[in-house]
Amino acid sequence: MEPVEQIIDLITVVGVFAFAISGALTAMEKKLDLFGVFIIAFATAVGGGSLRDVIIADRSVFWLVEPIYTYIIIGGTAFSILFRKKLGYLKTTLSLFDTIGLALYTIIGVQIGIHMEFSGVSCIALGTITGSFGGVIRDILVNDVPLIFQKEIYATISIFGASLYYILHHLGNTGIWVQLLSIFSIIILRSIVVYFEIKLPGIYSKD
Amino acid sequence: MEPVEQIIDLITVVGVFAFAISGALTAMEKKLDLFGVFIIAFATAVGGGSLRDVIIADRSVFWLVEPIYTYIIIGGTAFSILFRKKLGYLKTTLSLFDTIGLALYTIIGVQIGIHMEFSGVSCIALGTITGSFGGVIRDILVNDVPLIFQKEIYATISIFGASLYYILHHLGNTGIWVQLLSIFSIIILRSIVVYFEIKLPGIYSKD
Amino acid sequence: MEPVEQIIDLITVVGVFAFAISGALTAMEKKLDLFGVFIIAFATAVGGGSLRDVIIADRSVFWLVEPIYTYIIIGGTAFSILFRKKLGYLKTTLSLFDTIGLALYTIIGVQIGIHMEFSGVSCIALGTITGSFGGVIRDILVNDVPLIFQKEIYATISIFGASLYYILHHLGNTGIWVQLLSIFSIIILRSIVVYFEIKLPGIYSKD
Repeated sequence: MEPVEQIIDLITVVGVFAFAISGALTAMEKKLDLFGVFIIAFATAVGGGSLRDVIIADRSVFWLVEPIYTYIIIGGTAFSILFRKKLGYLKTTLSLFDTIGLALYTIIGVQIGIHMEFSGVSCIALGTITGSFGGVIRDILVNDVPLIFQKEIYATISIFGASLYYILHHLGNTGIWVQLLSIFSIIILRSIVVYFEIKLPGIYSKD
Repeated sequence: MEPVEQIIDLITVVGVFAFAISGALTAMEKKLDLFGVFIIAFATAVGGGSLRDVIIADRSVFWLVEPIYTYIIIGGTAFSILFRKKLGYLKTTLSLFDTIGLALYTIIGVQIGIHMEFSGVSCIALGTITGSFGGVIRDILVNDVPLIFQKEIYATISIFGASLYYILHHLGNTGIWVQLLSIFSIIILRSIVVYFEIKLPGIYSKD
Repeated sequence: MEPVEQIIDLITVVGVFAFAISGALTAMEKKLDLFGVFIIAFATAVGGGSLRDVIIADRSVFWLVEPIYTYIIIGGTAFSILFRKKLGYLKTTLSLFDTIGLALYTIIGVQIGIHMEFSGVSCIALGTITGSFGGVIRDILVNDVPLIFQKEIYATISIFGASLYYILHHLGNTGIWVQLLSIFSIIILRSIVVYFEIKLPGIYSKD
């Protein structure tokens, strides 16, 4: 395994961990019990990738095949419960990990679509689903209207990064730098959006 | 391709377009943002067929394989947003397209079940799922109790049309007229039900 | 077919029937209409096993392949509607069947995981999903926060029984007694928990 791949593996673990914490915090706000907190953490961390694997033929969901993800999520849940009073201080750090998770999951989704030889629009859809839909499933389970349907920048950035990666790949660029460029584009764009509190123009503004 | 098949293809496009508009209008009523409106339109238009493909082994969902559906839905979403103030006048037309979509999706679902050699009751279930469950998924995503659980005529007509097609096919009739008869039965029945505001007898009436 | 297998088949039928009644009663409390009551009964009875079949590659959901389940659920729905005013007296009996269903579904889920050669934690997850997630899907469809996220003992017992079965099997025990022991452990444990109203310690107690 090359150093770059090792770094990506490491960041993936961190991304899953961050997504799990994001889910556990939401569940604890809703005063769910231990099992509920774990399931919401689980659904947030692997929900997007699971939906991706379910809608593609002949794939068991990835966390059944690679049990390491379940252990990371158990760890993330335990961490969230133990340090739930101190996680407020960590919000910036968590948001960064969440962004890293979004970026990595998006590119992984596009890569699987390319591997399955789907069309461009389907590959980009798979990237967006993998990156964003853990949060949608989390919100459905705790009975909220999904957050990303109301703050579309999150998903829009995922669509942008997925498109960038697909186009570069389609033009014949297959080096690791294409992945890294797409991943960092998502991370930087989202950081800018969060920092400056940018919103897309609403569609109801003139009503 | 024969003329009849071309007509069915054309009507399918119209049905997807109408389902997408129905989803987009629901999402805009809930004041969702651009991405939310698109996702609800998407889920309404292809949710039933996706659930069907997911519960049958060895099938990728149809819209991953045929990207034309995604483009139609993007078009339907854009159309809904641009003309959202005028779509009130189009409600009757939209309701007709919605009915056509229900009819076509139902029969397509039964045909896939027959092709997979499932039993009659499973084929009818697949037809009903394909025809009706886009609306169920739409309602779950915007956090409502699904409409068809409260107004069962919609799904009941789908079950009736699916049963009619299955029985005629089972008796050895395989001509295009069997499809057309089943499709028009659904369209006419539903139009009658909507026009005369017919409801099935409630099960709580004597409570 | 041996007598023990016949007994298990018989109990399975009773479990599906009981789960269907549990779903139908929930739906009637929400004043859903005939079709809604049937769909909620259906989702409660086969939702866990369907989710299991969907996340494993190459499986159609079991009720498409074996239509007997659909007939049992139609029967359970009709039974619930006809006797809805008298089912209050049957609550203890129903709770017992519900527990039997939980126990059987849990062990069936683990067995399928072992057959697919998944790791221990994935087998236990499949058992818990098969046993508990019909109720989760029921609650999402009627727009409640899932009950088991707030009363975790139900799922915790499922996890315990699944672990017991997996460990015994992993240690080389493959006799029918391993299945029976695991099934009865779940039934007895849950009966004790319900009778004495035992709750796990909350995670918010010190807040």
